[in-house]
Amino acid sequence: MRTSIATVSLSGTLTEKLAAAARAGFDGVEIFENDLTGSPLSPEEIRERAADLGLTIDLYQPMRDIEAVPADEFARNLRRAEHKFRLMRRLGADTVLVCSSVSPYAVDDDTLAAGQLRRLADLAQESGIRVAYEALAWGRHVSTYEHAWRIVEAADHPALGVCLDSFHILARGSDLSGIEDIPGGKIFFLQLADAPQMALDVLQWSRHHRCFPGQGDLDVAALVRAAVRAGYDGPLSLEVFNDVFRQADAGRTAIDARRSLTLLQESAGVTAPPAPVVPTGFAFVEIATADTARIAPLLTALGFSRTARHSGKPVDLWEQGEARILLNTDTDTDTDTGSHRSGPSLTAVGLESPDPAGASARAESLLAPVLPRRRAPGDAPLDAVAAPDGTEFFFCVTERPGDTGHPGWTGDFVPAPHTPAPIGITRVDHVALSQPWHHFDEATLFHRGVLGLRPQASVDLADPYGLLRSRAVSNEDGTVRIALGVGASPGEDPARGGRPQHVALVTDDLVPTVRRALASGARMLPVPANYYDDLAAAHEFAPGELETYRELGILHDRDEKGEFRHCYTVTTGRVFFELVERVGGYDGYGARNAPVRLAAQHALAE
Amino acid sequence: MRTSIATVSLSGTLTEKLAAAARAGFDGVEIFENDLTGSPLSPEEIRERAADLGLTIDLYQPMRDIEAVPADEFARNLRRAEHKFRLMRRLGADTVLVCSSVSPYAVDDDTLAAGQLRRLADLAQESGIRVAYEALAWGRHVSTYEHAWRIVEAADHPALGVCLDSFHILARGSDLSGIEDIPGGKIFFLQLADAPQMALDVLQWSRHHRCFPGQGDLDVAALVRAAVRAGYDGPLSLEVFNDVFRQADAGRTAIDARRSLTLLQESAGVTAPPAPVVPTGFAFVEIATADTARIAPLLTALGFSRTARHSGKPVDLWEQGEARILLNTDTDTDTDTGSHRSGPSLTAVGLESPDPAGASARAESLLAPVLPRRRAPGDAPLDAVAAPDGTEFFFCVTERPGDTGHPGWTGDFVPAPHTPAPIGITRVDHVALSQPWHHFDEATLFHRGVLGLRPQASVDLADPYGLLRSRAVSNEDGTVRIALGVGASPGEDPARGGRPQHVALVTDDLVPTVRRALASGARMLPVPANYYDDLAAAHEFAPGELETYRELGILHDRDEKGEFRHCYTVTTGRVFFELVERVGGYDGYGARNAPVRLAAQHALAE
Repeated sequence: MRTSIATVSLSGTLTEKLAAAARAGFDGVEIFENDLTGSPLSPEEIRERAADLGLTIDLYQPMRDIEAVPADEFARNLRRAEHKFRLMRRLGADTVLVCSSVSPYAVDDDTLAAGQLRRLADLAQESGIRVAYEALAWGRHVSTYEHAWRIVEAADHPALGVCLDSFHILARGSDLSGIEDIPGGKIFFLQLADAPQMALDVLQWSRHHRCFPGQGDLDVAALVRAAVRAGYDGPLSLEVFNDVFRQADAGRTAIDARRSLTLLQESAGVTAPPAPVVPTGFAFVEIATADTARIAPLLTALGFSRTARHSGKPVDLWEQGEARILLNTDTDTDTDTGSHRSGPSLTAVGLESPDPAGASARAESLLAPVLPRRRAPGDAPLDAVAAPDGTEFFFCVTERPGDTGHPGWTGDFVPAPHTPAPIGITRVDHVALSQPWHHFDEATLFHRGVLGLRPQASVDLADPYGLLRSRAVSNEDGTVRIALGVGASPGEDPARGGRPQHVALVTDDLVPTVRRALASGARMLPVPANYYDDLAAAHEFAPGELETYRELGILHDRDEKGEFRHCYTVTTGRVFFELVERVGGYDGYGARNAPVRLAAQHALAE
Repeated sequence: MRTSIATVSLSGTLTEKLAAAARAGFDGVEIFENDLTGSPLSPEEIRERAADLGLTIDLYQPMRDIEAVPADEFARNLRRAEHKFRLMRRLGADTVLVCSSVSPYAVDDDTLAAGQLRRLADLAQESGIRVAYEALAWGRHVSTYEHAWRIVEAADHPALGVCLDSFHILARGSDLSGIEDIPGGKIFFLQLADAPQMALDVLQWSRHHRCFPGQGDLDVAALVRAAVRAGYDGPLSLEVFNDVFRQADAGRTAIDARRSLTLLQESAGVTAPPAPVVPTGFAFVEIATADTARIAPLLTALGFSRTARHSGKPVDLWEQGEARILLNTDTDTDTDTGSHRSGPSLTAVGLESPDPAGASARAESLLAPVLPRRRAPGDAPLDAVAAPDGTEFFFCVTERPGDTGHPGWTGDFVPAPHTPAPIGITRVDHVALSQPWHHFDEATLFHRGVLGLRPQASVDLADPYGLLRSRAVSNEDGTVRIALGVGASPGEDPARGGRPQHVALVTDDLVPTVRRALASGARMLPVPANYYDDLAAAHEFAPGELETYRELGILHDRDEKGEFRHCYTVTTGRVFFELVERVGGYDGYGARNAPVRLAAQHALAE
């Protein structure tokens, strides 16, 4: 099916919006009236610009408060419509959106509404224009798609059909089965938007909080399926009013939008992009750093050993159990971002993939930037894509004795002599990645759609200087977990150390692991004594247990399935490490302790 | 009455919050448990810190899910309470807040609730602690203050009373008359917060959108009056959960909070600060600029003449009718803000005041920074305060022939020879001031409370790069109007010219005025042709009228009371001018045209 996007979904001038939509691969656009009114381009110039970009103009919108009004008011409305139809001819748009009246003058009279819409359709037809009538969820008398269809059916005019808008229909919790009773040819247009479930006035909800399908809680795919079953074959068009998209870079938003639409088409069964390839574990975590003076001793204290060096790049492999960390001192590749100025930073994640090439094909079909394969001749191919936050995700296979097939990424590394001194770390539990402000939903969609991970609910975490939002994505068995976090404002104060990222490492027995780390010189994050007083009030502990936690800076959480013990190293550059022990079926990340951890990190940074 | 603020209302560490509360003049604080838990200071050290700052610790909060639970659960709760009472003794806090249960284990049994709260109060009393029981609006079984009071009354324990929270009570639209039936001595605490009226889930509304009294839509003063009539004489304490305050500078937020509380006390009739002095007009608008090369010709083209120069400062007075503009080239005073680097900027507004000293006393009592009087010996005294956006407001008298009393500000100016060449401008209609991000409510409260202006509803304006919010404040007859605007994100992109401010000037006949301005070389903002097509569709105009508007770049609006014609000069530095003609009783600002104006300004800047 053709894809389209309403210009109101993107920021900037009309010219910028058209360019962004075209670059992201949309087939057409809906022109939102205000975008045209504010543009210095004439309708003819806009038509030409769109054509040059390969975009059709699928809809002109909106026309308001047309129908079910007294005769004199309707005469004025027809006059207004004549002006707009003239404009649409100049623009080359052949479908106009008419929203159900919200006017205080509108009367509750379906026969009047049908008659006036028929008259409007007559006028439209003379100009070769079709009228798509849509029920606004807050329409004065017509607020459901069934009602709009009854009026259109009664009007019985070839140039009059309905427009179905997923927000207006799903926000009201409407039954979708009635859609299949509408002849497909009478569904003139399909506007798609998602939204988070909110108990908010529906107009405010609609105007400010819509999002792209898959970023909210509405079942937009069910609506698409119903429309397709009804025989609709027009464009799938995104119409999203969102305060954030209004100010975000249009090019970036358009890519996010197009990715959402592909995933929606996949869910609705109308397109089949390459299937998702769910990762089965962490192959490695890569930390970039100009020098290793601070990070290498920390890794050593945490029980890692430098086991190998890349054959062609200044990259060291550090291992302990199944936990692998790459230290990359090839900072030339990243100097333009300035991300290394403040020391080590987490730049890449290797995901163990059952099918690296398939994962890469999936990512490419979803507009993830595929990275140039940084390989020397003879290196194993490394399929990699960039996430919205800039983190590079590699799809890899870690070769094990006897493996055949896809060459393992470790084949590029030359073993180095070393004496293992593990402290009990077995693997990576999760990585926590800071997302750019206002791109949290984009990140969730990316990790779900491109990487095949399942998002959990988002939580608010109280930092001393603002609320953070955090959402974990993971594979089914929890062997790949990523915690996506976003701050409260665009500028993380560099004076306070920026927003560091972290790598959480699994141990089966935290207390001896921490003791060994401390004995080897690791600096752990000090936890305020008040925290342990609070813990003592909350739960009973075995004798000595709480004292041990207090001594070692261990935090504690429990849920109905199990317990969680964790502690943190101090931050070096933009990275710190967490040591975690999961007991029983505990599936969380210690969110209740995050405010204490954040306060302690701020205290240390000052 | 004593004033207090909950630490959760301010950002930062506990130490920073205490310091900010003290600096703003609060008498005490409520300690929010998370702030203590995350603090490296021991309870004794916190007690000492507060005492050193002259702050009492009026409340420790919150204790949750205590009452109406099964016996074994209650035993655990008492154990928890023992821990917390021990902590409160160390902290020197003698009142604890207990919120009504939200626990799924809580049962709907008032007798059980009363019995368990009595037992809790027994335990508290042993430690010299009082328990203030509060109904959360989303409490599982107890969600109204009347219900909470019935349980407290039944428990009948001297160490048990109620806490009244204005949010929980007013958000539910509760009848306040029941408050006076509670003996004042049993109202242990009063927590105050306002909130904008929202059809939002009450818990989300409460946790994220509370604001300081006077910044929302709840009648907090009515609640204070009821509590005072009941005999309550404890502190008035602000407890505001707000996403913005969590990240804003704590010192600034505390001042805003303290100002809100003074205005609330005034509304409730428990304090009488100096009465408001409502300004009666604009005395002048001051524009600072390093050089006048760009602005002076523009003023000349707009019909202003340089009529006088200040006797002691490089400040010129330009006049036309009752419109007065000061050009101040004394940029030394402002170089630290860097505001002049990009050319002329609007820095001060002179308000015609019936009582400048009174206005200044009012401002000072409301913690407005009173500015050093920038005067030479012999100058008229200039009472001035700084608004939250940095604009300086002067309270002045413009002397007219035969006036006596307060010396006029023009007495400091030496007339300059000039030939008037007016183009029909009679006075200043309004000034539009850009507010810092996230400080819109603070600005509204300031202009209402300190300057005595009346706020109108806020409106959203669609800029191509994000939604702006705008709210006008004015005096009764509209001779003083200020449009406060705020952008969508903290950094206005300097590449797009920053967010300019503007001065709107009144003419009784816009068309000839604009023609004369153009003839004198004024550059007016070009308006897209599409705007006039849209206007033609919307309304019928007299023959030639629309063509004239199109020719001159005049925008048009109408409401039920009249019409509005307006147009804009191009921006110079950070300032532009608007020419406005109000016809009939039109009382707005042409908000419907703002998106077109903003788009046109962006187009010109690129």
